[in-house]
Amino acid sequence: MHKKRTGIHDVAEAAGVHPSTVSRVLNPRTRGLVSQAVAERVEALAGKLGYSADPVASGLRTRRSATVGVLIPDIANPVFPLILRGIEATLGEAGYTAIIANTDNDTARAGAALARLAARRIDGAILATATRRDPLIAQCRSFGLPTVLVNRAADSGKVSAVIVDDRAGIALAVEHLFALGHRSIGHVGGPGNISTGQARRAGFLAAIKAHGLAPPAVAMAESYSIAAGERACAQLLGMKRHISAIVAANDLLALGCYDELKRRGLACPREVSVTGFNDMAFADRFDPPLTSVRIPHRLMGAEAARLLLAQIANPRAPIQEIKLLPELAVRGSTARRK
Amino acid sequence: MHKKRTGIHDVAEAAGVHPSTVSRVLNPRTRGLVSQAVAERVEALAGKLGYSADPVASGLRTRRSATVGVLIPDIANPVFPLILRGIEATLGEAGYTAIIANTDNDTARAGAALARLAARRIDGAILATATRRDPLIAQCRSFGLPTVLVNRAADSGKVSAVIVDDRAGIALAVEHLFALGHRSIGHVGGPGNISTGQARRAGFLAAIKAHGLAPPAVAMAESYSIAAGERACAQLLGMKRHISAIVAANDLLALGCYDELKRRGLACPREVSVTGFNDMAFADRFDPPLTSVRIPHRLMGAEAARLLLAQIANPRAPIQEIKLLPELAVRGSTARRK
Repeated sequence: MHKKRTGIHDVAEAAGVHPSTVSRVLNPRTRGLVSQAVAERVEALAGKLGYSADPVASGLRTRRSATVGVLIPDIANPVFPLILRGIEATLGEAGYTAIIANTDNDTARAGAALARLAARRIDGAILATATRRDPLIAQCRSFGLPTVLVNRAADSGKVSAVIVDDRAGIALAVEHLFALGHRSIGHVGGPGNISTGQARRAGFLAAIKAHGLAPPAVAMAESYSIAAGERACAQLLGMKRHISAIVAANDLLALGCYDELKRRGLACPREVSVTGFNDMAFADRFDPPLTSVRIPHRLMGAEAARLLLAQIANPRAPIQEIKLLPELAVRGSTARRK
Repeated sequence: MHKKRTGIHDVAEAAGVHPSTVSRVLNPRTRGLVSQAVAERVEALAGKLGYSADPVASGLRTRRSATVGVLIPDIANPVFPLILRGIEATLGEAGYTAIIANTDNDTARAGAALARLAARRIDGAILATATRRDPLIAQCRSFGLPTVLVNRAADSGKVSAVIVDDRAGIALAVEHLFALGHRSIGHVGGPGNISTGQARRAGFLAAIKAHGLAPPAVAMAESYSIAAGERACAQLLGMKRHISAIVAANDLLALGCYDELKRRGLACPREVSVTGFNDMAFADRFDPPLTSVRIPHRLMGAEAARLLLAQIANPRAPIQEIKLLPELAVRGSTARRK
């Protein structure tokens, strides 16, 4: 005969507490409401008796789902899994899980995805998709949904965000190229409606000026993709000035530069050096390995999750913008100017 | 003249309630705040007047969420975004969206993720995570959840699956290496508890035998990851026989072989040729570009979505296993035997 499955009442009786206390202890979100001594006794007894709370059932009871929606603009860009690891690790420690929606850089899709996630009673959202004036942020507010932006900020400043210092990152790339003797440096920029595209372009122009160089050539890509980078690079190289180095606004754009340089028979880095931004997964394995501004992926994700959990616990938690410092990963795609 | 679109005020007036009550009823997050009788009256009138707040609200009326859960074993493996594109395109045409959960190859995490998705009332699940005897499949059945496996099959055959012909794929790789003069070919295999690991290993042994070669060296990796591939490659090369080519069971394992060969000062492909499996994104950009068995990613995803939609429409739709044929993408990681 099967032994009857241990229930919450068995644990409550053994611990001499009310079943609701057991429930509170075993739910990571409410554990803090119970004294440490009682929580430890209940946990020990639950373990001994082989009782574990059903996360779904407990979520229904508390009207909390312990689920966070994460909107990713392009799941094929290998920088996002790295950020996601930080998000998932921090959420996991708090008993939360992430569900992910891919928006393929499409605002309408992002809106629909968010509405569907909200209808699934997620407790909060982390948006890696934000444009500078993003209707999604208002949508989140209208749902009363705790929200944090990661990697990209909004102009309004009315929502918490964890971003990297884009200007500082681009300055590192320009400084590196300058030290290698490059004086004619072009920029393949990101989309102007995304904070990173705008800030990296501004950072590029400021760094060029700070080094006393002439106004540079700039071509903006219409999206963060390899194909858009290839087109922008073609435009840049068609500007009829000699360019010995290209600072790309992200790694996919840099790969697009590789493709266009190859098409023109220009060797990288011998004839043209290229830098990327993100230090996405596999950047070190390309041919040539890509010199790239490294953002602290995992920390960025972890901080975004931390801010979101704080907001879930306290809807009046202050709005914060956390700006993290990048480094430069120097690899084979940059070389001394001939 | 255009007929004026029915607004929230029309519904409120007809129902004799405040517009905010209509809004509460039609927002799944707040519906519970309104009495059942009022909620039903509002919903009926909204339906009659042709007012829908958004797709979510209409989903609730039909008890369909128009959302499908997709479980991915490792979001950092760039083969999955390619499959996902096919899934999302086919779902999108039918008005469905995918929400994604990353399980990091962890069965417990996969179970928890599925339970949470099911609690969010998804209409079906596509599992790219299946092990050969996967408790998740029984879990899906116990939830009454339409389910399709993609890329990996289960031993039971009790669930529809879209997979690639693993044996035929590995045979292509072995044949290619044989034609290049290789006679001492080793295998870095995938995990034995996953259908692809098992079938690719069996396919490798069969192909070697079919070419009349001596029994080969095989080392199985404990997971589909670069680090596990590196360890298995070290084991393979430590077997004290000369190996001039390695057939890896997927592209991440092949990258692990690159790392181990480099560590030992062995040049790829000059001293050792390497093949992968999946032709994941970026495979053509590695150093050297990876020769890999190409699976029809997009078609695979599209077929999985198609089978799932058929099951959602008709829970008695027959169980099908669709096996797609791979090709070989020949690149720089394989060369004629010295």
